[in-house]
Amino acid sequence: MTIAKHSRFRVLDAEPYNGEAPLSLLVEHPETPADLFYVRNHAPVPEVDPEAFRLEVDGLVRRPLSLSLAKLGREFPQAEVPATLQCAGNRRDELVRVRPVPGETPWSAGAISHGRWRGVPLAAVLAAAGVYEGAAHVAFAGLDVVEKRGESFPYGGSIPLGRARATDGSPPVLLAWELNGEPLTPAHGFPLRVVVPGYIGARSVKWLASIRVQEAPSDNYYQARAYKLFPHHVGPADADWSRGLMLGELSLTSAIGRPVDGEEVPAGATTVIGYAMAGGDRTVERVELSRDGGQSWTWCEHAPAPPGAWTLWRAEIDLEPGDHELVCRAWDSAANTQPEAVAPLWNFKGYMNNAWHRVRVRAR
Amino acid sequence: MTIAKHSRFRVLDAEPYNGEAPLSLLVEHPETPADLFYVRNHAPVPEVDPEAFRLEVDGLVRRPLSLSLAKLGREFPQAEVPATLQCAGNRRDELVRVRPVPGETPWSAGAISHGRWRGVPLAAVLAAAGVYEGAAHVAFAGLDVVEKRGESFPYGGSIPLGRARATDGSPPVLLAWELNGEPLTPAHGFPLRVVVPGYIGARSVKWLASIRVQEAPSDNYYQARAYKLFPHHVGPADADWSRGLMLGELSLTSAIGRPVDGEEVPAGATTVIGYAMAGGDRTVERVELSRDGGQSWTWCEHAPAPPGAWTLWRAEIDLEPGDHELVCRAWDSAANTQPEAVAPLWNFKGYMNNAWHRVRVRAR
Repeated sequence: MTIAKHSRFRVLDAEPYNGEAPLSLLVEHPETPADLFYVRNHAPVPEVDPEAFRLEVDGLVRRPLSLSLAKLGREFPQAEVPATLQCAGNRRDELVRVRPVPGETPWSAGAISHGRWRGVPLAAVLAAAGVYEGAAHVAFAGLDVVEKRGESFPYGGSIPLGRARATDGSPPVLLAWELNGEPLTPAHGFPLRVVVPGYIGARSVKWLASIRVQEAPSDNYYQARAYKLFPHHVGPADADWSRGLMLGELSLTSAIGRPVDGEEVPAGATTVIGYAMAGGDRTVERVELSRDGGQSWTWCEHAPAPPGAWTLWRAEIDLEPGDHELVCRAWDSAANTQPEAVAPLWNFKGYMNNAWHRVRVRAR
Repeated sequence: MTIAKHSRFRVLDAEPYNGEAPLSLLVEHPETPADLFYVRNHAPVPEVDPEAFRLEVDGLVRRPLSLSLAKLGREFPQAEVPATLQCAGNRRDELVRVRPVPGETPWSAGAISHGRWRGVPLAAVLAAAGVYEGAAHVAFAGLDVVEKRGESFPYGGSIPLGRARATDGSPPVLLAWELNGEPLTPAHGFPLRVVVPGYIGARSVKWLASIRVQEAPSDNYYQARAYKLFPHHVGPADADWSRGLMLGELSLTSAIGRPVDGEEVPAGATTVIGYAMAGGDRTVERVELSRDGGQSWTWCEHAPAPPGAWTLWRAEIDLEPGDHELVCRAWDSAANTQPEAVAPLWNFKGYMNNAWHRVRVRAR
């Protein structure tokens, strides 16, 4: 299957297809165009016949459902939700420079993108199915088929039922068929995908085939083993998979998009731009830029953004001729800020690097 | 008014009364005894006649209420909730060592305590009053009277309506009259106080007199000016109060309670204990201890705790003779961890220091 992307899109793996936009291009667009939107796949892109497609809803529900796309679009309320997706491996390349992370895609800071998604709130589908007491998780499975350790199985994952219902004013979890006003492309989950604002991208299952309401999290490999955060001192050989932190809500992060690392810029007035993103139902409250390694900070301008959505920020600074290191950090509505250094965040799967982001520039 | 506290309780200010337990004593009790529970007051403790007491509920509600304690206890469902309160100024003393924070109480790491609270869920009272569409915040005012800048006014603050209703499975916000099975003492808010699990202690208004449902946050000094987080470079003279981060949910923190800083311990097997606490509806997922400044980490044992509650943790380590620095950090369910250094967190009000906690010990 041909995957149509921007000429400057960086393909990191051909099959399964993984790629990200160059950071400097990414931060030019508050809403990421589909051909720059990062792609993180674990299996070949499935070809789905939209006429034959049915979404199955079962498990701890009173009325199991089998929904065609037409029925989904006709019988449920629709919503358009601005949401940023971000891979748990975003900024892994900085971790790799501390110590190798074998077998994992070395994402730069471009494994994040923002879009407008249209679809049906998952809560409405769950209400129609009638969830039984005792249910606590909602598991998703895709139509893509992963080959791993001699087995074939669909990609899958789950979220807590409370998040699925989004009764707390969090942005709704969507079953989406449109990105930025256009039908999903095959690489992004055509004809239907989950979008879970504020969670790691891995839970926004593409080519959605089934929703199962259950007592426990999904036992899919990508929920039960992968996407777990282990301490610094644990390696793959001694990992007790039951003890890893099962990733869900995103942590707070930010990155400088321009200038790019290693760039030469004219001395004098310089515009610095980047993104910042909070997790869960938190919002980015402040972005700061430092030119002296964190001794002093400048307040950056950013547009307010709802939970689950990134914000692009900007600062105007004056650079004297010479070498400079620019550093950014954000603060969220729970007064969390980002950790300073990358090294103490290293973990053998290379997840959740949200250290201060640094670029070196030379002003001439 | 006499305030009865433990003989080792550290009184930081006599009037308004502020004090905390020594950290080493605090971490001995999963549930903090009332006589060790920190006290943060902004005005003299009011003497309240419980017979004459009425809680007024008004603002954007269909049915304003005036509730005696008897009526509150008789006509509403009751709940017992484990919740940790923590002052936004906890661990300010470490910030003060970076740069002075004039006019603020120099809390050590003991401005945090955990209790079992009994009372009525705020959500039940709001439901009885009937909240109008358009309401977004719930403002509290106490019976204590602050004297500030030539004015007298009650202490107050507010929380978002979504948090007040706690429909997302967060621990309920309580209107509480009991701490650890005993009536509240005067210093802790007798006869009635708010308890907002996961939020800075300032929102858990004591001697609660009124609840007002409104469109905007409280305009009380302690919501509109104090308890705002400003960047590193902003001072009181140039603070634009509308731009500060209005504190609400707590950030993630942890501290080493034993051994204490500067302690001499026998060389060999040493038990290290402390607390960790996540904010909002997040939970502490991991606590780690380092003996080499964060190069390597040990996994500490901790009991699982619900959102809004601290956990006490423990690690058994072997200390060779000599000087050591012990460092702890926690991770929460949103994969946030604590920032490394105190200095970049400095702010002129001295709030929300959640850097790695460090103690120096000498083993002999």
